[in-house]
Amino acid sequence: MSELGPDLIIGAVSIFTAGITMAIGSIAPALGEGKAVAEALNAIAQQPDEAPTLTRTLFVGMAMVESTAIYCLVVSMILIFANPFWEYFIGKAGG
Amino acid sequence: MSELGPDLIIGAVSIFTAGITMAIGSIAPALGEGKAVAEALNAIAQQPDEAPTLTRTLFVGMAMVESTAIYCLVVSMILIFANPFWEYFIGKAGG
Amino acid sequence: MSELGPDLIIGAVSIFTAGITMAIGSIAPALGEGKAVAEALNAIAQQPDEAPTLTRTLFVGMAMVESTAIYCLVVSMILIFANPFWEYFIGKAGG
Amino acid sequence: MSELGPDLIIGAVSIFTAGITMAIGSIAPALGEGKAVAEALNAIAQQPDEAPTLTRTLFVGMAMVESTAIYCLVVSMILIFANPFWEYFIGKAGG
Amino acid sequence: MSELGPDLIIGAVSIFTAGITMAIGSIAPALGEGKAVAEALNAIAQQPDEAPTLTRTLFVGMAMVESTAIYCLVVSMILIFANPFWEYFIGKAGG
Amino acid sequence: MSELGPDLIIGAVSIFTAGITMAIGSIAPALGEGKAVAEALNAIAQQPDEAPTLTRTLFVGMAMVESTAIYCLVVSMILIFANPFWEYFIGKAGG
Amino acid sequence: MSELGPDLIIGAVSIFTAGITMAIGSIAPALGEGKAVAEALNAIAQQPDEAPTLTRTLFVGMAMVESTAIYCLVVSMILIFANPFWEYFIGKAGG
Amino acid sequence: MSELGPDLIIGAVSIFTAGITMAIGSIAPALGEGKAVAEALNAIAQQPDEAPTLTRTLFVGMAMVESTAIYCLVVSMILIFANPFWEYFIGKAGG
Amino acid sequence: MSELGPDLIIGAVSIFTAGITMAIGSIAPALGEGKAVAEALNAIAQQPDEAPTLTRTLFVGMAMVESTAIYCLVVSMILIFANPFWEYFIGKAGG
Amino acid sequence: MSELGPDLIIGAVSIFTAGITMAIGSIAPALGEGKAVAEALNAIAQQPDEAPTLTRTLFVGMAMVESTAIYCLVVSMILIFANPFWEYFIGKAGG
Amino acid sequence: MSELGPDLIIGAVSIFTAGITMAIGSIAPALGEGKAVAEALNAIAQQPDEAPTLTRTLFVGMAMVESTAIYCLVVSMILIFANPFWEYFIGKAGG
Amino acid sequence: MSELGPDLIIGAVSIFTAGITMAIGSIAPALGEGKAVAEALNAIAQQPDEAPTLTRTLFVGMAMVESTAIYCLVVSMILIFANPFWEYFIGKAGG
Amino acid sequence: MSELGPDLIIGAVSIFTAGITMAIGSIAPALGEGKAVAEALNAIAQQPDEAPTLTRTLFVGMAMVESTAIYCLVVSMILIFANPFWEYFIGKAGG
Amino acid sequence: MSELGPDLIIGAVSIFTAGITMAIGSIAPALGEGKAVAEALNAIAQQPDEAPTLTRTLFVGMAMVESTAIYCLVVSMILIFANPFWEYFIGKAGG
Repeated sequence: MSELGPDLIIGAVSIFTAGITMAIGSIAPALGEGKAVAEALNAIAQQPDEAPTLTRTLFVGMAMVESTAIYCLVVSMILIFANPFWEYFIGKAGG
Repeated sequence: MSELGPDLIIGAVSIFTAGITMAIGSIAPALGEGKAVAEALNAIAQQPDEAPTLTRTLFVGMAMVESTAIYCLVVSMILIFANPFWEYFIGKAGG
Repeated sequence: MSELGPDLIIGAVSIFTAGITMAIGSIAPALGEGKAVAEALNAIAQQPDEAPTLTRTLFVGMAMVESTAIYCLVVSMILIFANPFWEYFIGKAGG
Repeated sequence: MSELGPDLIIGAVSIFTAGITMAIGSIAPALGEGKAVAEALNAIAQQPDEAPTLTRTLFVGMAMVESTAIYCLVVSMILIFANPFWEYFIGKAGG
Repeated sequence: MSELGPDLIIGAVSIFTAGITMAIGSIAPALGEGKAVAEALNAIAQQPDEAPTLTRTLFVGMAMVESTAIYCLVVSMILIFANPFWEYFIGKAGG
Repeated sequence: MSELGPDLIIGAVSIFTAGITMAIGSIAPALGEGKAVAEALNAIAQQPDEAPTLTRTLFVGMAMVESTAIYCLVVSMILIFANPFWEYFIGKAGG
Repeated sequence: MSELGPDLIIGAVSIFTAGITMAIGSIAPALGEGKAVAEALNAIAQQPDEAPTLTRTLFVGMAMVESTAIYCLVVSMILIFANPFWEYFIGKAGG
Repeated sequence: MSELGPDLIIGAVSIFTAGITMAIGSIAPALGEGKAVAEALNAIAQQPDEAPTLTRTLFVGMAMVESTAIYCLVVSMILIFANPFWEYFIGKAGG
Repeated sequence: MSELGPDLIIGAVSIFTAGITMAIGSIAPALGEGKAVAEALNAIAQQPDEAPTLTRTLFVGMAMVESTAIYCLVVSMILIFANPFWEYFIGKAGG
Repeated sequence: MSELGPDLIIGAVSIFTAGITMAIGSIAPALGEGKAVAEALNAIAQQPDEAPTLTRTLFVGMAMVESTAIYCLVVSMILIFANPFWEYFIGKAGG
Repeated sequence: MSELGPDLIIGAVSIFTAGITMAIGSIAPALGEGKAVAEALNAIAQQPDEAPTLTRTLFVGMAMVESTAIYCLVVSMILIFANPFWEYFIGKAGG
Repeated sequence: MSELGPDLIIGAVSIFTAGITMAIGSIAPALGEGKAVAEALNAIAQQPDEAPTLTRTLFVGMAMVESTAIYCLVVSMILIFANPFWEYFIGKAGG
Repeated sequence: MSELGPDLIIGAVSIFTAGITMAIGSIAPALGEGKAVAEALNAIAQQPDEAPTLTRTLFVGMAMVESTAIYCLVVSMILIFANPFWEYFIGKAGG
Repeated sequence: MSELGPDLIIGAVSIFTAGITMAIGSIAPALGEGKAVAEALNAIAQQPDEAPTLTRTLFVGMAMVESTAIYCLVVSMILIFANPFWEYFIGKAGG
């Protein structure tokens, strides 16, 4: 059994990077969406008749903002569950 | 018994990353939601008749903002309770 | 008795992470709620007749903001009182 | 007597974390409450007749903001007076 | 006599943490109270007739803001004068 | 089998850089898009008749903003799945 | 004579902490008081007839803000002139 | 085979620099473009008749802002796929 | 003669702390006073008849702000000219 | 063959500096140009008749802002493709 | 001759602290005075008849702001030309 | 041939400093010029008749702002192509 | 000849401190003066008849702001050309 | 020939300090001048008849702001071309 071997370092780096990527990646989408929602409520209060157009624009726009959070979640999940570097070293450690 | 072995390092990194991910990941959603709630109250004060539309938009929007906090909570819980790297090293340590 | 053993490092990391998670996790909810309360007071002053609707929206919204502080408290308490890594190493140290 | 033993490190980390948790945890509630009080005074000046409603909303809201400071105080006190890691190592050192 | 023993490290960490806790813990209350006082003066200038209500609300609110500074002072004083970790190591050093 | 060899270091650096690139790269697009969506909602509320022109401009503009997030995602994916440095060292390790 | 003994380290930490505590602790009160004074001048210019009420409120409020600076000064003076850790080690060094 | 040789260090530095360059380089263009889009929507809402002039100016301006992101992408791609330092050391390692 | 003895370290720490305490301690009073002066000039321009009341309030307020700078100067001077730790070590070095 | 020789260090420093120079150097021009474009759109909406003068001033001004990004690109390219220090050491390594 | 003796370290620390104290200590007074001058010009433009009162208040106020810069200059000069620690070590080195 | 000799260190420091000087030195001029251009466009929209005076003032002012970027470029180029320290060490290495 | 002797360290610290003192010390005066000039131009545009009084107040005020930059320049020049610590060590090295 | 001798360290510190001094020293003047130019354009647009007075005040004021950049350039050039510490060590190395 290899102690402090390459699999350990790859594992530790993957865990840390996965968490930090998700954490930092959640900051801006949440702020951006909060701002969009706040402005949408303000706009609906000004023009109640346009509420359907406004909420539709809001949700399409928020989906686009959310996409950057999704990119980070995808990178984070790849690093935890489908990490090619990890699989290479597991294979080598088992080989 | 292996002292300072790979399981220790993976465990320590997982604990630290889980906490930091949740801590950083709670900053932006709380600020964004606080802003949205503040604007909603302002909008209701301006247009009391639109209160149902406004609160509905508020809660749908906040659910979307909350989703980024949930992503962080999910990553944090995966690292504590369903960590594939930890299980690999536990298996190896026990093997 | 193992000195500077894995249980020590896991314990120290858990204490530090629990405290920091709670400390950072309290920043944004407090700011967000403070903003929401401030806006609620402003809105009530503008529309005293809508006070019940406004306070209801305020408390539902604040509960959602508070939820991110609760997530951090939960992670912090798990790390102090129900830490699976700690239990593993305690078991190993006692085994 | 064990010098520089695990109890020392756990103790030092607990002291430092307890202080920092309380210190960081007091920033946001104080700012949020200060903002809420400032707005309340502004609102009372605008609508003196609504002073009872406004102060009631203010104090309920501030109690909720204060709760995040209380969470930090609780974590800080647990780390100083009811620290399970410390008790484990004290027990071990005395065992 | 133990040089560079556990009591030294606990003492140094306690001194540093006590000072930093008080220093950081004084930032936000002072800013929050300064903001509240500024707004109170503004409100009194707008509504001189409501001065008693405004100053009463101001002082109750400031007492609540001050409470977070008090929590920090309490933690700081506990670390200097009633530190359970210090007493444990003093007892051990004298034992 | 080479322990702590070049493939390990290249792998660890690639994982860390891929995550950080995606995380930092998601901050600005999310903020910029949130701002654009907020302004679009405001503009639609002012000029409901121009909603088609406004949403078209919004989506073309957001696509351009999103492009910087895509650049980061591309760099991140190249580093994980098509990394020329990694392939060189894998080839050398296997050679 | 003990060189680089515990008294030296306690002394150096006490000096540094005393200075930093006072320095950081003076930032927020000075800013908060400056803001309060500025607002008071503004309020007096608006309502010269209320000058007595305004200055009284100003000085009571500033006294409360000043209290956080006083807490820091007290902690700083305790660390320089009535430091229990220092007295313990002086006693031990002389014992 | 040279372990930890110059090619490794050049490779690791190139990977890290390529990612960081792209990540930092995407911040300002995304913010600047978001601001420009937001203002364009505002301007179109004010002057719907000038929409063609405004969108033309917007896209020419955004192309210029985007150019700084492109510079970073170019530097990043040169470092990954056409790095003269890497080629020099590969040649030397193979020589 | 003791080289690199305790007196050296205490002296170096005292010099550094004295300078930093004064430097950081001058930031906030200068900003706060600048703000107060600026507002005073503004207020006098609005209400020239109240100039005596305004300048009196200004100088009393600035004296209070200046007090935090004075605290820092006092701590700084104590560390340079009346440092009890320094005197203790000088006495010990000469004893 | 010199391992870890001067050419390696010069190469690594050049790669890192080239990337960072371009990355930091792209921040301010992108923000400045974004601001200029936003203001231009605003100005055109106010004075559609002056659109030619405004766009001409905009592009001359942006060219000047872009010049600082070009300086950084030039320094970055010199460091990668025409680095006098690199050529000196390559010459020496080959000499 | 003592190389790397106490006088060297005291000298190096004194130089560095003197420079940093003056540098940091010049930030806030310059900003505060710039603000006060700006407001004074604004006030004179509003009330040209009050120019004598305004400039007198300005210069008295700026003298008070300047005092914090003077404190830093005094500490800086004491450290360079009248440093008691330096004189002590010079005396010891010559003794 | 001297490995890791003075010429290497001087070269590496010169490369790094040249890049950083240019990168940091491009931030403020780009922001300042962007602000000036934005204001110029605003001013032309307000006073189209004064466009010649405004653009002339703009370009003279921007030339002065640009001068600080030029200073940085000059320092950067001196460090790369006319570095007296480098020439001294090259001379010494060749001597 | 003393290599790495006290004169070297004093010289290196003096160079670094002189540069940093001047660099940091130029930030605030330039910002403060820029603000004062901007306000002066604004004031002259409002009250062209008061231009002599305004420019006189501006230059007296800017001289006072400039004084803090001069203090830093003086400290910087003292460290380069009239450094008492340097002269002491030069004398000792030559003695 | 002295390798890693005092001249090397003095040279490296001088290069780095010269670059950083110029880089940091260019930030504030560029921002301050940009602000002054922006305000001048605004003022000319408001009072075209006062353009000569305004541009004269602008250029005298900018010359004063530029002076702080010139101080930094002078310190930077002294460190590169007329460095007394460098000349001392060159003299000693050649002596």
